[in-house]
Amino acid sequence: MNAPEPVVSPVSLRLRRLGIDTYQQYVVYLRADAPIVRSEGFEAQSRLEIRRLDQPGPGLTAILNVVHEPLLEEDEIGVSEAAWRALGGAGGDAVAAVHAPPLQSFGAIQSKIFGRPLSRDAAAAIVADVAAGRYSDIELAAMITACSGNRLDVAETHALTAAMIAAGQRLRWDAPLVADKHCVGGLPGNRTTLLVVPIVAACGLLIPKTSSRAITSPAGTADVMETLAPVALELSAMRRVVEREGGCITWGGAVQLSPVDDLLIRVERPLGLDSDGLLVASILSKKVAAGSTHVLIDIPVGRTAKVRSPEAAGRLGQRLTDVGRQLGITVSIEMTCGEQPVGRGIGPALEAYDALAVLQNQADAPDDLRKRALMLAGYLLELGGKVHPGGGLAMASGALANGAAWRKFQGICDAQGGLRTPPRARYTRTLHAAHAGLVAAVDNRALARAAKLAGAPKAPAAGLVFHAPLGTQVDVGQPLLTLHAESPGELAYAMTYAQSQDNLFTIVETP
Amino acid sequence: MNAPEPVVSPVSLRLRRLGIDTYQQYVVYLRADAPIVRSEGFEAQSRLEIRRLDQPGPGLTAILNVVHEPLLEEDEIGVSEAAWRALGGAGGDAVAAVHAPPLQSFGAIQSKIFGRPLSRDAAAAIVADVAAGRYSDIELAAMITACSGNRLDVAETHALTAAMIAAGQRLRWDAPLVADKHCVGGLPGNRTTLLVVPIVAACGLLIPKTSSRAITSPAGTADVMETLAPVALELSAMRRVVEREGGCITWGGAVQLSPVDDLLIRVERPLGLDSDGLLVASILSKKVAAGSTHVLIDIPVGRTAKVRSPEAAGRLGQRLTDVGRQLGITVSIEMTCGEQPVGRGIGPALEAYDALAVLQNQADAPDDLRKRALMLAGYLLELGGKVHPGGGLAMASGALANGAAWRKFQGICDAQGGLRTPPRARYTRTLHAAHAGLVAAVDNRALARAAKLAGAPKAPAAGLVFHAPLGTQVDVGQPLLTLHAESPGELAYAMTYAQSQDNLFTIVETP
Repeated sequence: MNAPEPVVSPVSLRLRRLGIDTYQQYVVYLRADAPIVRSEGFEAQSRLEIRRLDQPGPGLTAILNVVHEPLLEEDEIGVSEAAWRALGGAGGDAVAAVHAPPLQSFGAIQSKIFGRPLSRDAAAAIVADVAAGRYSDIELAAMITACSGNRLDVAETHALTAAMIAAGQRLRWDAPLVADKHCVGGLPGNRTTLLVVPIVAACGLLIPKTSSRAITSPAGTADVMETLAPVALELSAMRRVVEREGGCITWGGAVQLSPVDDLLIRVERPLGLDSDGLLVASILSKKVAAGSTHVLIDIPVGRTAKVRSPEAAGRLGQRLTDVGRQLGITVSIEMTCGEQPVGRGIGPALEAYDALAVLQNQADAPDDLRKRALMLAGYLLELGGKVHPGGGLAMASGALANGAAWRKFQGICDAQGGLRTPPRARYTRTLHAAHAGLVAAVDNRALARAAKLAGAPKAPAAGLVFHAPLGTQVDVGQPLLTLHAESPGELAYAMTYAQSQDNLFTIVETP
Repeated sequence: MNAPEPVVSPVSLRLRRLGIDTYQQYVVYLRADAPIVRSEGFEAQSRLEIRRLDQPGPGLTAILNVVHEPLLEEDEIGVSEAAWRALGGAGGDAVAAVHAPPLQSFGAIQSKIFGRPLSRDAAAAIVADVAAGRYSDIELAAMITACSGNRLDVAETHALTAAMIAAGQRLRWDAPLVADKHCVGGLPGNRTTLLVVPIVAACGLLIPKTSSRAITSPAGTADVMETLAPVALELSAMRRVVEREGGCITWGGAVQLSPVDDLLIRVERPLGLDSDGLLVASILSKKVAAGSTHVLIDIPVGRTAKVRSPEAAGRLGQRLTDVGRQLGITVSIEMTCGEQPVGRGIGPALEAYDALAVLQNQADAPDDLRKRALMLAGYLLELGGKVHPGGGLAMASGALANGAAWRKFQGICDAQGGLRTPPRARYTRTLHAAHAGLVAAVDNRALARAAKLAGAPKAPAAGLVFHAPLGTQVDVGQPLLTLHAESPGELAYAMTYAQSQDNLFTIVETP
């Protein structure tokens, strides 16, 4: 950090797409005999700033890897897939490369590590540098670690959230009250958004909902919705849907709300560090950027969910409420049961079928999903002032029962580009109970993993159907789950995994 | 961390050296249509465990990058240079790859981040996994961050140090007292080791000294010594030198003392995080592994040195002494001035010439280097009980003045493979004072950078000669430094840099 800035005139190199996917990290490849490598050497995490000579602007910062012949010519600069997309050029384009200047804002992270609080200015500088792609993965890891372990107080969390909002696009709606809901996640099949949005929109609340795709789960809400209608709507298209229907269910990635959050998540996930401060900044930056004023946050609590104890949920909820207040929005927390999946399907299309069954009031619709969605919709209606406290559940139930929610959902899908039928997988295979007893516990993480091994979310029809919720009395040979896959290989692979997991279902003998 | 372990039979792939140097991080490259990528997907920091099928043993853990055709065939696995070296195979070898199991020991890092102390068992498990190459760079970054900011207490530092000692080779000497010295670093030209070792060895102390090569500096002690004699001695060769001469100056990397330290340094350096706990573990693990019993540690203190205040040096010194005591060795601390380079040369050969001048009692030998070395040698002789307290300096001065130290140095070089003449650079250029005045400050870091730009340490003859120490009264046009380089390009590049650095020399007008 303290190295003085080198004085170098940029060297012009020919751009070359090397076809290496480094999972979003920007990497450039140069030969050892390239002048910039020879003059400055090559150390761990050496970084270059590169830009196209035919374009003004700052370009991007990338980690340097050194390659041997014949991968590159001496005057070529290879780029990873993420850098190739970000540069937006063509092979052979002239590119300038200089050693990247020291990252000044990282000094504030070092100070934070040594116990000094993160100021508003420091948070803004850090987030601006992260947004510009100047932080390497190890610097992001240090930042995330420094902010974890409850080391961010309310003021620091607020500073970070505000900076993250400022770094992305911010939507504004011509309405005094904009409703939103969010689930902290970690529970397969918890697809209440597809129900809550049409219910509350049918009752007159404005709810322009943006959702994410799966990161490590078998399906994100955007993936599920995409099996029913287009979701990658740009801002103008999203606005038209919301103006016509009073709500939407689109993919947030298309409107670039809080892009910094996406960059942090990339490193947070493999580290398994869910800090309250960063989680709050992540959630609330997206909500404020989406223009929401009244936000209901669902925190599922369970031993294999993301939040594992009511105490942890309480702390997180308090922080969300406090920081929300500082940002000028109303945040309400709802703790829900997170001990098992919600509904039956796990995987984009299978979860969409669950939602359709509830919306269409089918007799065999999953009751847990229906109840959960009605409860959340009811709270949101109360929070948004559409009904007196205590009257939300009845209002939501009415809108579902009388078909208004289903009509609203069809309207939203139509406005987003047309309702479609989710695909069905070509191959299925069922896992049966090896002994009789009562289902006493299920492992959400192992179920999610099995669904992913079957192909979800990449294959939208893939995943699994969950037949034996907690409390089910099963006989030997009774179906526990059915795997759905688009290839026999994936089906077999997922089944091998499911069969090997002793705690996928904990079945206890009953007297 | 909590993902369940997949059940996969290893897929056999053909090994391919791709020629990509990722600076020591193990990276493997597979095509997107390779079965293991298709079945498990590809996330940030996805990791594979790979091993050669013709070899037993655990193999190594590597980060996965996904590549397009035509870089690889479908059944090939590309490896980075570090992984290629570690696997030690040949192109086309059959390699098994499975998704790496979760890294259990990282749970203790997560706990540490959340404030729970690091136990001895946890430290041992972490260090064993780091040693086995199972930690990715972001996990190392999280570990280092979690240990920084003085978050390790004495017990934790001791646990980490003991674990690092256990993970490497440990030397044993057939002597009750084994002397050693170490400099915390950050001061260009501070090459006292080449003087202290022959002086104290000439006085009868056993001093089997291992040193490191440069990491970010223009020269490490091993680089300097290598211009005078071979240093890459394996243990048996090192032992023969020490048995014959009572001392040696070899490269520690050749005997694998505390290999974990080298892995940590790779990520510590770019993060600029020097935690007392990690620094103590780094230093003492190498000393104990080297079999040392009495260690003198030089801590240069200066505004542009590694340790910037006497208070910081005091804390570090106390921790070194405390942990040393727990490890059963005697550690003594010597704070020295770190405001400017020591001697005149910066760069391997130029520093070697300084040391030779002192050893040979040349009239123009750099006096600051001579005094510093005599003082340290004197303390070490007292610490080792060769002389009464207060008598060390005189004993050391005698051994230098009467030629015993120079004869001992020649003996050591001879035993290590033969004394040689350090090279001289082909090109030199001098930077002159732009105005008259008194040299009030010099920037150690900028001087080190200029020497590196000139080619040090890769070109052993390259670097610079420093003509104007603090307090020098200079006239306009008087030489401040002379750059030495092996190519005109590097010379020009280093000069451009030196000329641009306003604070390289702070020259104040005197009345």
